[in-house]
Amino acid sequence: MKNCLRLMLLIGMLLLALCSGVYAGEAPVASLEALTDVQKYNRAIHIMAMLLVGFGFLMVFVRKYGRSALTATYLLVSVSIPLYFVKESLFAPAAPATIIDTLILAEFAAASLLICAGAVLGRMKMQQYLFLGILFVPCYALNEWLVLNGGLGLISGKVVDTGGSIVIHAFGAIFGLAVAASMTTRQEYETAIESDENSDKYSLLGSMVLWVFWPSFCAALVAPADVPKTGVNVILALCGSTLATYFASVKLRGKISAADIANATLAGGVAIGSTCDLAVPGSAFMIGILAGVVSTFGFAVIQGKLTDWSKKVDTCGVLYLHGLPGLLGGVVALFVASGINVGAQLTGIMVTVVTAAVTGLVSGKVLAVMGRRVAPYVDAEEFDGEEGEEDVVMAIAAEEPIA
Amino acid sequence: MKNCLRLMLLIGMLLLALCSGVYAGEAPVASLEALTDVQKYNRAIHIMAMLLVGFGFLMVFVRKYGRSALTATYLLVSVSIPLYFVKESLFAPAAPATIIDTLILAEFAAASLLICAGAVLGRMKMQQYLFLGILFVPCYALNEWLVLNGGLGLISGKVVDTGGSIVIHAFGAIFGLAVAASMTTRQEYETAIESDENSDKYSLLGSMVLWVFWPSFCAALVAPADVPKTGVNVILALCGSTLATYFASVKLRGKISAADIANATLAGGVAIGSTCDLAVPGSAFMIGILAGVVSTFGFAVIQGKLTDWSKKVDTCGVLYLHGLPGLLGGVVALFVASGINVGAQLTGIMVTVVTAAVTGLVSGKVLAVMGRRVAPYVDAEEFDGEEGEEDVVMAIAAEEPIA
Amino acid sequence: MKNCLRLMLLIGMLLLALCSGVYAGEAPVASLEALTDVQKYNRAIHIMAMLLVGFGFLMVFVRKYGRSALTATYLLVSVSIPLYFVKESLFAPAAPATIIDTLILAEFAAASLLICAGAVLGRMKMQQYLFLGILFVPCYALNEWLVLNGGLGLISGKVVDTGGSIVIHAFGAIFGLAVAASMTTRQEYETAIESDENSDKYSLLGSMVLWVFWPSFCAALVAPADVPKTGVNVILALCGSTLATYFASVKLRGKISAADIANATLAGGVAIGSTCDLAVPGSAFMIGILAGVVSTFGFAVIQGKLTDWSKKVDTCGVLYLHGLPGLLGGVVALFVASGINVGAQLTGIMVTVVTAAVTGLVSGKVLAVMGRRVAPYVDAEEFDGEEGEEDVVMAIAAEEPIA
Repeated sequence: MKNCLRLMLLIGMLLLALCSGVYAGEAPVASLEALTDVQKYNRAIHIMAMLLVGFGFLMVFVRKYGRSALTATYLLVSVSIPLYFVKESLFAPAAPATIIDTLILAEFAAASLLICAGAVLGRMKMQQYLFLGILFVPCYALNEWLVLNGGLGLISGKVVDTGGSIVIHAFGAIFGLAVAASMTTRQEYETAIESDENSDKYSLLGSMVLWVFWPSFCAALVAPADVPKTGVNVILALCGSTLATYFASVKLRGKISAADIANATLAGGVAIGSTCDLAVPGSAFMIGILAGVVSTFGFAVIQGKLTDWSKKVDTCGVLYLHGLPGLLGGVVALFVASGINVGAQLTGIMVTVVTAAVTGLVSGKVLAVMGRRVAPYVDAEEFDGEEGEEDVVMAIAAEEPIA
Repeated sequence: MKNCLRLMLLIGMLLLALCSGVYAGEAPVASLEALTDVQKYNRAIHIMAMLLVGFGFLMVFVRKYGRSALTATYLLVSVSIPLYFVKESLFAPAAPATIIDTLILAEFAAASLLICAGAVLGRMKMQQYLFLGILFVPCYALNEWLVLNGGLGLISGKVVDTGGSIVIHAFGAIFGLAVAASMTTRQEYETAIESDENSDKYSLLGSMVLWVFWPSFCAALVAPADVPKTGVNVILALCGSTLATYFASVKLRGKISAADIANATLAGGVAIGSTCDLAVPGSAFMIGILAGVVSTFGFAVIQGKLTDWSKKVDTCGVLYLHGLPGLLGGVVALFVASGINVGAQLTGIMVTVVTAAVTGLVSGKVLAVMGRRVAPYVDAEEFDGEEGEEDVVMAIAAEEPIA
Repeated sequence: MKNCLRLMLLIGMLLLALCSGVYAGEAPVASLEALTDVQKYNRAIHIMAMLLVGFGFLMVFVRKYGRSALTATYLLVSVSIPLYFVKESLFAPAAPATIIDTLILAEFAAASLLICAGAVLGRMKMQQYLFLGILFVPCYALNEWLVLNGGLGLISGKVVDTGGSIVIHAFGAIFGLAVAASMTTRQEYETAIESDENSDKYSLLGSMVLWVFWPSFCAALVAPADVPKTGVNVILALCGSTLATYFASVKLRGKISAADIANATLAGGVAIGSTCDLAVPGSAFMIGILAGVVSTFGFAVIQGKLTDWSKKVDTCGVLYLHGLPGLLGGVVALFVASGINVGAQLTGIMVTVVTAAVTGLVSGKVLAVMGRRVAPYVDAEEFDGEEGEEDVVMAIAAEEPIA
């Protein structure tokens, strides 16, 4: 298995060397263009903060699996971004994207992969996350090509999905659920996923970092003149889902759930994605409220029932944060975007669902062949120095005379 | 009460729908202008990082109230920003602000509200934070209108307050103290506010995020050519207060206090606000040193005495971080800004103090009617899933008489 | 000692007052230039996030020394940035840098100082960190002058080091090791440096913040048109080192080490520094892989042996994260940068190594005169309110039956 990975790394290196051509079409002389690209670069950095600190810490809510979640985040980002560059240089269209656009598209792929990984978090060996990334990127790129670039001529019109409600969020979530469907074992199903005060706070940190930089995610590739409007729409949608999540959480559970607050608050960002540059403030705020209610209902009501019924575990509840709000965002575009091509939009959603489900199921089967963890949801199995918890007891005990 | 909130949300939605007109005056064709607005957008994102991650985690120093502090932060931001947009569309002046300027002004209001909430942190039910926001925003906007936009003709000249020492920091702190004056109970006064190693670290995280992005807060609405100078002034002021805080903390307490380091280090940013674009590096650094000394003296010496004397609790010590340094910044402008209108500046400060105190007291009375928490400063009362930690169970058990 | 520091602060203030002239050459009228400077400002903020949140939390891996590490970070940044401004105003060249370039150069100095401090972390009193900063900045500026600005005519050609592999990373690390060589005591050598689950997570937070903003560090002073390319190179190098670190860590240790993941993942950023604007994606990725392997080998294999052999402690392992990868980056430039002046590059590296070692050793002797801590690696000695620790003892004790 290691040789296999090394081979892939080697191939990666060779292909990356090919990639050098990516720089050819660049070097803008006109300064306004250069400054515009630097502003895109800046939003690309914001997205990177979401990928590592945001998604990474959001997944630290599994209290004994925090270091693994963060390490997996590092690996998933580091495998998917170079792979997307390789893909871009292999299948460069007639008018290749600039290097900064390619970076942002690669980050979108990484975001979708991290969403996908949330569904099976804690139940794969570390190497399997890498393989998941290697399997995911081509499937993601296939769907991107089919839905956004007219691949195979499946969709004749323009699909409205600027911030990726459909092709990033819904695709990642459904792919992840399909992988989980192939992989959940009885032991995993029966092992409780524990969180505590501290893991909740880390999770809220990740959540807030995602909230803060979400406008840059949605506005990443938008023209300069549309960036402020897009940013405000995303912020108002997030405000809407945050308020709605609080009310729905208290209503549905009787008390506030930290998990709802960390997750469903973000549903507005997911759902506004498709129409982030087309909505007006009022509709953005209302889309956010709707998404927050749907997402919180998912976490508070559907998750438990669906898990019991299906005997499958969706560790982070990606169906409720990314899947349903993503589909909602794609459908809502029909009412918000004027002059939208209804047929194209609906076909785009359907193609995404089918592609994600099929490629996800197949990927899950492939990953299942590589074996599985003995003990789910704990760092101890793969991390060094796992005397950790015991460690502290020892250390304190040994120091009692000093203290 | 819930119906009441729902009604307000509904009104919010309707008004937001009205807000659509905000986009009308936009769509700049000239690219230099568009790029300038994107740069403002970028600073708006920096401010958002301060609001959520910065203020949010700074308040996690109350160790058993961390999740509540973060949730309250989410709600306060999410209620104040849409409300400010509603206000803007209702009372649009002849020359309405661009959407990105409105966003930044809304974030300023949210910052002031978070400062205010710091004074009563841990002593309100979660819904009361929302009401606090609903009461605060109009009062804040009133003061903004009176002091900066010549409302009622109270102030004839220009008040120097680019980064909001007066109208953001001092206003928020005094409003918060006035609310606290209406609300502190004997039990709250007698319950110690506990912090520990971990809550200190979260608090330092929030502090550092505030420090890092503070220059963008002060330079948010500054012309492009003045941004670098403003940024450097703010950074030097923060360096000054950080050094001064360390020396003052050791001098006044004998040991270093993590609370001083997390809070008073930021006083330079508060105090330089008024003159951030007018000072020179030397004066900025010295303003920072002065503010750091004043703030640390407040935390180390005044806070204990004032609490005992007044029997009122200022949970986060906002008087010492935002109140005194904010007023200091407003007064210091008299010496730093050349050609300043002394009368206008002093009147502006006085109007702010009076408006904040009066509207804060009234708001406090209104909030007090809504009842209060049984157990102050603990998440357990309102949060789900408290089984998480044995620790917590133990702690709660020990507190049963109170709960 | 305090009087001494106060004197220095006073001098600092006076000099800063002199600094006002820095603003003279500014106020660009041409808006494209102003916008370019604002974009630099923006990268300067990114670097500030690295300095405080990144370096600060990376050093929190020492579990009982977290608050001290963060406070030291605050002080080191706050002393070095003003000092660098003072230096700049005292030794202004014929064509002085703009204020934003000066800020970025000052941040580079602060970064190098934080690297240096990592070598002796936990073994100096808080005041000594300040003195370390006061001693370090002139030495750093001397080397900067010798290597990059042709000081003394030592180096006749251009040294390729855009992102500071040599003059920032290697210089800081070697200076720090030299200080450590003068300072490590037997007790320090014999005291284990403990980390735990939580301190690992804080460390990973710092690591991720560094990773995210590293492209802005390398591209800080690069021309707008080269920023996207530079950013992509840095990101690909970091992806390379992250993947390599994982494989090397598992290979060399059998299990994953959280310390490797937090540190060696960043080695790609260190090593790509010299050639960040010259490499192509393929070479950037490969430089990252190489650096990740070298760095992980350093942490996993060399560190233990070298510590035992030398009886000197390098607390954060700066030799393996910054020293070796920095030198690697400087040497690799010989193969990557076309038309490079080989003599100048090698001389530049050598001058840096010698200057750092000599000035570091002398600084270490000076600092050693100021005495040392009684108990290394604990907050308790200098921090107020140390009841926190007892708390932990209680909690753990109560849990012993469970564990």
